[in-house]
Amino acid sequence: MKKYIQVHPWEIVESGFHSEFAKISESIFSLGNGRMGQRANFEEHYSGQTLQGSYLAGVYYPDKTRVGWWKNGYPEYFAKVLNSVSWNQIRVIVDGVELDLNKYEPIDFQRTLDMKNGLLKRAFSVIMPSGVKLSIETQRWTHMSRKNLGGIRMQITPDRDCEINIHSVITGDIRNQDSNYDEFFWEDTQSGYENAISWVSQKTKKTGFHVYAGTRTYTNCCQTFIKSETKVSELSVDDAFRVEAKSNESIEVVKYAAVLSDMYVDTADFSKQMELELNEAAECGWQKLCAEQATAWQEVWDNADIQIEGDDTAQQAIRFNIFQLYQTYTGDDSRLNIGPKGFTGEKYGGSTYWDTEAYCLPFYLGTATSDVAKNLLVYRHNHLPKAVENAEKLGFTNGAALYPMVTMNGEECHNEWEITFEEIHRNGAIAYAIYDYINYTGDEEYMETYGIDVLVGIARFWSQRVNYSENKKQWVMLGVTGPNEFENNVNNNWYTNKIAVWCMQYAKDSLAAIQESNLETYQDVIDRLNIQNEEIDRWKEIGENMYFPYDEEKKVYLQQDGFLDKELIPVSELEENQRPIVEHWSWDKILRSCYIKQADVLQGFYFFEDEFDLDEHKRHFDFYEPLTVHESSLSPCVHSILANKIGNHDKAYEFYLRTARLDLEDINNDTCDGCHITSMAGTWLSVSKGFAGMRVKDGTLTFNPNIPKKWSSIGFNIKFRDNYLRVQLSHESSQLSNLDGPAIDISVNGSTIHIPSNKTINI
Amino acid sequence: MKKYIQVHPWEIVESGFHSEFAKISESIFSLGNGRMGQRANFEEHYSGQTLQGSYLAGVYYPDKTRVGWWKNGYPEYFAKVLNSVSWNQIRVIVDGVELDLNKYEPIDFQRTLDMKNGLLKRAFSVIMPSGVKLSIETQRWTHMSRKNLGGIRMQITPDRDCEINIHSVITGDIRNQDSNYDEFFWEDTQSGYENAISWVSQKTKKTGFHVYAGTRTYTNCCQTFIKSETKVSELSVDDAFRVEAKSNESIEVVKYAAVLSDMYVDTADFSKQMELELNEAAECGWQKLCAEQATAWQEVWDNADIQIEGDDTAQQAIRFNIFQLYQTYTGDDSRLNIGPKGFTGEKYGGSTYWDTEAYCLPFYLGTATSDVAKNLLVYRHNHLPKAVENAEKLGFTNGAALYPMVTMNGEECHNEWEITFEEIHRNGAIAYAIYDYINYTGDEEYMETYGIDVLVGIARFWSQRVNYSENKKQWVMLGVTGPNEFENNVNNNWYTNKIAVWCMQYAKDSLAAIQESNLETYQDVIDRLNIQNEEIDRWKEIGENMYFPYDEEKKVYLQQDGFLDKELIPVSELEENQRPIVEHWSWDKILRSCYIKQADVLQGFYFFEDEFDLDEHKRHFDFYEPLTVHESSLSPCVHSILANKIGNHDKAYEFYLRTARLDLEDINNDTCDGCHITSMAGTWLSVSKGFAGMRVKDGTLTFNPNIPKKWSSIGFNIKFRDNYLRVQLSHESSQLSNLDGPAIDISVNGSTIHIPSNKTINI
Repeated sequence: MKKYIQVHPWEIVESGFHSEFAKISESIFSLGNGRMGQRANFEEHYSGQTLQGSYLAGVYYPDKTRVGWWKNGYPEYFAKVLNSVSWNQIRVIVDGVELDLNKYEPIDFQRTLDMKNGLLKRAFSVIMPSGVKLSIETQRWTHMSRKNLGGIRMQITPDRDCEINIHSVITGDIRNQDSNYDEFFWEDTQSGYENAISWVSQKTKKTGFHVYAGTRTYTNCCQTFIKSETKVSELSVDDAFRVEAKSNESIEVVKYAAVLSDMYVDTADFSKQMELELNEAAECGWQKLCAEQATAWQEVWDNADIQIEGDDTAQQAIRFNIFQLYQTYTGDDSRLNIGPKGFTGEKYGGSTYWDTEAYCLPFYLGTATSDVAKNLLVYRHNHLPKAVENAEKLGFTNGAALYPMVTMNGEECHNEWEITFEEIHRNGAIAYAIYDYINYTGDEEYMETYGIDVLVGIARFWSQRVNYSENKKQWVMLGVTGPNEFENNVNNNWYTNKIAVWCMQYAKDSLAAIQESNLETYQDVIDRLNIQNEEIDRWKEIGENMYFPYDEEKKVYLQQDGFLDKELIPVSELEENQRPIVEHWSWDKILRSCYIKQADVLQGFYFFEDEFDLDEHKRHFDFYEPLTVHESSLSPCVHSILANKIGNHDKAYEFYLRTARLDLEDINNDTCDGCHITSMAGTWLSVSKGFAGMRVKDGTLTFNPNIPKKWSSIGFNIKFRDNYLRVQLSHESSQLSNLDGPAIDISVNGSTIHIPSNKTINI
Repeated sequence: MKKYIQVHPWEIVESGFHSEFAKISESIFSLGNGRMGQRANFEEHYSGQTLQGSYLAGVYYPDKTRVGWWKNGYPEYFAKVLNSVSWNQIRVIVDGVELDLNKYEPIDFQRTLDMKNGLLKRAFSVIMPSGVKLSIETQRWTHMSRKNLGGIRMQITPDRDCEINIHSVITGDIRNQDSNYDEFFWEDTQSGYENAISWVSQKTKKTGFHVYAGTRTYTNCCQTFIKSETKVSELSVDDAFRVEAKSNESIEVVKYAAVLSDMYVDTADFSKQMELELNEAAECGWQKLCAEQATAWQEVWDNADIQIEGDDTAQQAIRFNIFQLYQTYTGDDSRLNIGPKGFTGEKYGGSTYWDTEAYCLPFYLGTATSDVAKNLLVYRHNHLPKAVENAEKLGFTNGAALYPMVTMNGEECHNEWEITFEEIHRNGAIAYAIYDYINYTGDEEYMETYGIDVLVGIARFWSQRVNYSENKKQWVMLGVTGPNEFENNVNNNWYTNKIAVWCMQYAKDSLAAIQESNLETYQDVIDRLNIQNEEIDRWKEIGENMYFPYDEEKKVYLQQDGFLDKELIPVSELEENQRPIVEHWSWDKILRSCYIKQADVLQGFYFFEDEFDLDEHKRHFDFYEPLTVHESSLSPCVHSILANKIGNHDKAYEFYLRTARLDLEDINNDTCDGCHITSMAGTWLSVSKGFAGMRVKDGTLTFNPNIPKKWSSIGFNIKFRDNYLRVQLSHESSQLSNLDGPAIDISVNGSTIHIPSNKTINI
């Protein structure tokens, strides 16, 4: 853990430059607007540790996978979000020497991520070799309402006369560090400088995404800048200025960047559109653009903010998580999804995982209008043909769909067999998300038009994936990897068996519901999907006679067959220097150990809580949690919610902080690679489902609050169906306000509260 | 299956050019002498399908491994035998047009591998575009007594006057097709032409093996060759000649190559040694060198030949297998081992697998003096420190040794976790080989000086690798891959559990035997290996209380936990177009199926046959064989031996042909990559242990012959301890001759036969 970030309710603050954590800070202070984003690389040159990163939503490249021994069914490509044109460089040369904080230590360095206003700021001084002391302030954003626009303002004040050369650079000479074969993913790179605009145009190899990015740099001050020669090379443009700076007079450089891709703009319109966007930005001016940005963020916060009173550490963390999620995904485009690192790094290819459905979907359901969550579902609906193709490659038939473990365009990217072929529970999460969405929004129509196709494909997959054991006289599922990836290729993973049965049941029930509500629609569905009665019967038969590993003595469901053959030594008995085990142990040792990476059986209890009583919850939590090392960022949040449920509030709070401050304190020792974006939704879940105890049961919003002792209250606004509500929960009393929408009944601790329109009820 | 090779007892004959099988033939007709070898690439240019390959024993390069997601303990490098200097090229240009059998179809093409004399021959005619018809004959060898020497003779007879240009090329511009990152593995390449010798010198990157190869080309005929300009480029030398050839007069080109590596010759002596070897060859002359080669091979055949009367198909096959084994490994250097492809291809890195101990060792025990087999054991003994290091990387301690799955220098190369970390039964085969060697040779001393160190390291590994299951109240072994690689990461693989217990028992017994025979030696061993009584007790305790999966109903040991949960559909019910399944099915489908790649439980029965009665043998064979697809080349031989044992002689013969003619008929559809050298030893085992029923029991050689109906007899000479014996077995009677050594008692079908020195006994 690294506690160098200052606590503040609305800001992330690094006070004093922590060069040893430079790459961690680059991740934490990242900027994004759902369309593009970048790591917080310095504007000026920095020769120290850095991971340069600028990313564009949806622009990917299928990198050739690496594998030792190829086997049938392995994917050939891994679609990666690409490191794209870098537009944020403003190199500063003072009296012939380049500013570089790795060489010249900054004084009074302060870096601030102003989350309320969506603004990244730095302020510091530095004494250059010539003796001149520069005071520098920078501000930067990627604009939330002008989606293609980025902007930087840099102010430099020398304490004596000096010559300052400014090089405002844009470059397409950017590589992914995670390229498998050191390949350069771009081609047809062109660049130029016209009408004071520096531009770079390039296309991705194979996928042919065309990106066109331009910058315009303004120099404003009482002093006279002299334009130096602009250097245009094949991949970059260096727009240079010189100024004879005066003692204690500030010079200011403002740089706007418009970054276009043919995902959104016709290639033919690139040049015109860029000029337009840059001109409009200039006309608007820095201050007004900042104000627009603040307004756009205010809209996000109005819906998504959670106020925690009495605990700034927790408050800062939840806001940081919400901020990063909305920087990554704003929900206006069903072609996009939420990469595990968002725009903060390259790791995991920036692609879609089951994290989206299991963790992020409820967050967007609660904090945005329903079309945002719907777009996430439609994304998978659009990938259904690819999921069917993916299943066919493995030998499945009849429209069985296996959604990929990792994807950008619907094709499987991952190529470890134990994950690709076996971590199939992901298919269940995709079905569960449909249930979650309809349960929350009440949008039953979604099932008929989109949902049922996906559900049937998934049910068909499960019904082919299980087999009947003559030995057990039950259905079994062999060779899977559960959510706990510290086990591979196990038989009868309880969670996977559970969600498989649930999926088939849900598909069957949903078909029955459609049949009941509209026979014509039902017939359409049956015809469209060519559903036979026998297959529905088979789903039922499997569901009724599925095998679930269970130990009669301990009265717990077993994570998988043979789990009790392991040596069950609690995590508490591990030496501290052995952790995280993934860094200290061989994969061999990990696989054979009893240690659980993330909730597995407990993930099933989290999804299907109503099927188990409180004793069962307690028994399973007490059995599995002590064996869990939580080395997946997705683990603590589920445990926090369950700990609240079983009344273990201290554990709940401990797990909350672990998930909420995961990146701010680099708890997993890997934030240098980027932030754990998708697991950030788990922080929100810990608060909403955990401490606020929020659920939707039979269409009714319910709360069973468990506010941590340290907190005086939790407050948030929430969108729920036709209502916009304010919830304020504290230890003594609570308030529910019906801010917008018709009268509504809400359940709090089991009592139904009726809240008329525009009214607040104190409880 | 491809039946294009002509049957002949001593020759492998391709009659008519089968360009569609060009790469298969290149493998089958490969040459080697244990020190170097090469695929049967044509001397003249060939623009068709070809895999160029020239290899030098022991010269390897650690190629960077490829892996999707790195995990702790994965090896970084895969040591590969390198494609090395190519010396066999003799390009032929006639009237300005290059001879190329891919362009100009040969007439009366005949390619012959004369196994008796170690000679590769070709004879064919071809009509060139100018209308001239060339009759060409080539001969080639890698010399069995002059280990650094290769030679080619080419005779060309045109049917009319023409101009022929000969380019005798040597080149270091050679790459491994299996390079992971398209890397060129050689550096410091130099070449030159001096004193009529063309030479290339190069070094492997990283490992620094220095190779120096030179050729000298002689042109002999009644006509006048004119030396053309020799072209020396960075990587190659082209030594060229021109002749105005006369109608129906033959021209002859003889090329000798000396290939030296600093494995055997000091770098400083390279040039002198090369000149010496080439001069000596020239002095000796082609005919005499061929005679020397025939003599050297005769010595091999004297010891290793098996005569099968009445079945030339079987006869040709067994000789081909013996020939290829001796081309690969002659046993004079304990730094060398037997790569699965020998010198016939690149696949599997040319490295050492457990095939050596499980299959090849008995072959060399029976067909050579005991020092050859001993060298194979010493190879592993020398690698013991690396095996300990390998185990330490995985978290084992106290001198536990895990021998690598694949290696060149003792370091693990393979990097699929399910193999590297889990296919640990290999460790058992290495211990079993010590038993096998001592049982056959009676060389008890080997145990004290070498064997016990290896055994104790292996026993320590097993005793740490198992764990006590509180649930079963027995010891279990979790997370292994058995010999059947169509299962990965299973619990309690019966074979692995069995051999683990056997190893611990054997280590314990061997220590006790040393203690009994010599207390001083015993104390030395105890001190040297720092053995504690507690660990020996633990080996015993584990051995007495190990869990073995067993089905009470079927009365069979189960291949692993949960095996009976699979759908058990016999291979006979698979559609023919689904086979081999490894080519037609996804890895996912294979893993979940019941299909067995190679003997697994039955491998255990083969090793430990005395522990099971005939009924048990039958029951297990009848249960497992029908589920076995034999897609490992190592599978049929074990099944052939067991089928003989249980009296299923037809199956035994069927499996024999499958293993014996695997490459000659390209049964597994992959001989294009190289021959299956190590599994060729299985052919010998099928005859000696199967049809001849040969065993060594309590120091006595025993035979229980089961001669196939089609065969009239089997005959072979065999080295056994102090004796050199001739064995002639037929349906009616048998003859045993004591060719050399003291009087000996041999058991035949349970009766003891006393054979005085130099006597033959008819039975």
